[in-house]
Amino acid sequence: MGRGREFDLIRGFVEGGEPLSPEVMLGPGDDAALLAGGWVISTDLSVEDVHFRRAWLSDEEIGYRAAAASLSDLAAMAAEPVALLLSVAAPVAGGVDLAAINAGVRRLAADFGASVIGGDLSRSPGPLLLDVIVLGKATWPVRRDGAGVGDEVWVTGQLGRSAAAVRIWQAGGTPSAVLRGAFVRPEPRVREACCLVEHGVVEALIDVSDGLVGDLGHVAAASGVAITIDTARVPVAPEVVDALGSTEALDVALHGGEDYELCFVAPAGTIDADYFTSRHGISLSRVGITGEGSGVWLRTAAGATVEATAGGFDHWAGTDTPGATP
Amino acid sequence: MGRGREFDLIRGFVEGGEPLSPEVMLGPGDDAALLAGGWVISTDLSVEDVHFRRAWLSDEEIGYRAAAASLSDLAAMAAEPVALLLSVAAPVAGGVDLAAINAGVRRLAADFGASVIGGDLSRSPGPLLLDVIVLGKATWPVRRDGAGVGDEVWVTGQLGRSAAAVRIWQAGGTPSAVLRGAFVRPEPRVREACCLVEHGVVEALIDVSDGLVGDLGHVAAASGVAITIDTARVPVAPEVVDALGSTEALDVALHGGEDYELCFVAPAGTIDADYFTSRHGISLSRVGITGEGSGVWLRTAAGATVEATAGGFDHWAGTDTPGATP
Repeated sequence: MGRGREFDLIRGFVEGGEPLSPEVMLGPGDDAALLAGGWVISTDLSVEDVHFRRAWLSDEEIGYRAAAASLSDLAAMAAEPVALLLSVAAPVAGGVDLAAINAGVRRLAADFGASVIGGDLSRSPGPLLLDVIVLGKATWPVRRDGAGVGDEVWVTGQLGRSAAAVRIWQAGGTPSAVLRGAFVRPEPRVREACCLVEHGVVEALIDVSDGLVGDLGHVAAASGVAITIDTARVPVAPEVVDALGSTEALDVALHGGEDYELCFVAPAGTIDADYFTSRHGISLSRVGITGEGSGVWLRTAAGATVEATAGGFDHWAGTDTPGATP
Repeated sequence: MGRGREFDLIRGFVEGGEPLSPEVMLGPGDDAALLAGGWVISTDLSVEDVHFRRAWLSDEEIGYRAAAASLSDLAAMAAEPVALLLSVAAPVAGGVDLAAINAGVRRLAADFGASVIGGDLSRSPGPLLLDVIVLGKATWPVRRDGAGVGDEVWVTGQLGRSAAAVRIWQAGGTPSAVLRGAFVRPEPRVREACCLVEHGVVEALIDVSDGLVGDLGHVAAASGVAITIDTARVPVAPEVVDALGSTEALDVALHGGEDYELCFVAPAGTIDADYFTSRHGISLSRVGITGEGSGVWLRTAAGATVEATAGGFDHWAGTDTPGATP
């Protein structure tokens, strides 16, 4: 089952219906909702054996990772984090250290200057489940729907490490510390996003949570453009090439998900990648262009252009195997 | 295990830690958090076989009930609902109609003039789980900590129907339509709360979700007072007396939980119950008084005063039996 299934269900789940209140500036369909006063809010579920396995992470890491994934949705709107709420359903069977989960969430919150202001706690007759709600404020929120034709598509950092760690775990192996670290302690690009939008040139912004192809599919659909990715320009993490070989590495970089890098669209010639790297210490890669049409396309090393369809991160896929597999 | 366990865990879970942002007016420890601009936010988990059984409710009712329970936390702060977010983890095994759940949440939202502005969706290897996040605005938010000594304690409506329905289900019976209706379609007292606080006399406000004794325990602890309930004045619903007899009926009215009525403290002589009833069509009962000391006390029909300890709604209790039992 392709990645489209979950997105379709979520879309049907949260869209449509009654008119929005005047206090609501932007409702469902983007990374987060916008409220009067510049408030941005989003929520993100993290379910045992769907999004993670307890054998892979400590309880502190489960909390940190769930909160980081949720906070990345604020980065995707160029919002500054203010507060988190944490709901946890903890297994009746026990074995979960709630204080450690809490400590992980608070560590992430403290790293980004946010406070934990509430939450809920229940027992669960099944898996451990976290729902992390994040609240931030955005001076210049950037949506998914502003890309024009003939623009450049950029991505921060390097891709594929988190998905590579999952593939290696699933194959019975042990990922390297670098790959594991990308999975257990992702770094939401909050500061980078806020700096990028200060220049006023970012037209569309998203975080790479579902995989580069999947997330650019959201931008293409919302903006009414086609996006062509030059596969030779995709910043595949070198540790992923070392671990999986170059072909599989490109696959996880395109489709793997949970990198939590930023992907954005800006007019040609307006982005200074060297300045960005000198300021933030991470790379910035021009991976593609926008054009007339729809969908996401791949320009291969051989020079062919093919539509990017299968792959991507679908928690809903009809398998019990957790993690970022296509 | 008494009702204290869950509260202690939640308290430890959400309190303490780093200083709050200047955008955060009130953090953990009340029904909801307060943010700059008058925003109020709360979140509430609803877990299959902990908070409900699927055999008891339709999927539409599961959605409506979860959203109503969460919205009641806005009433408890005297906030007007603006928006909801809905996170659902749906069983891999299937059998859940997500559209019906969604419709139930939207029905509740529409009933109270709020919009569904986002959410998340995952599969669950175990139970159905909903987390409903509610956002509102409060002009005069009322907390739990303002009760003084010598004040009156009031409760809206009648108590015990929801908990009685659960007791009857658990005993293998079928609750009457009135009792079942209280469980599946609770009415958060949003409008009543906003009207009550307009008069400027309500010092402390809470919703009766954990049981009258349990919730007044929160008020007593936060306000630094003792509260004595006159058991003869507790508004036990007549259908509960009919179904369970007067002794058990008083027990569920005191400890049962999930009534979602309002309970508040105001200076003696400031509340006009007849006016309230004529305006809102529900009763208003003076159930007790505040005094020096701490804890919640019961003045029995025989004239004795005893500390109210056991009982109340503890989802965390070491039993797999769901519902509002002590």
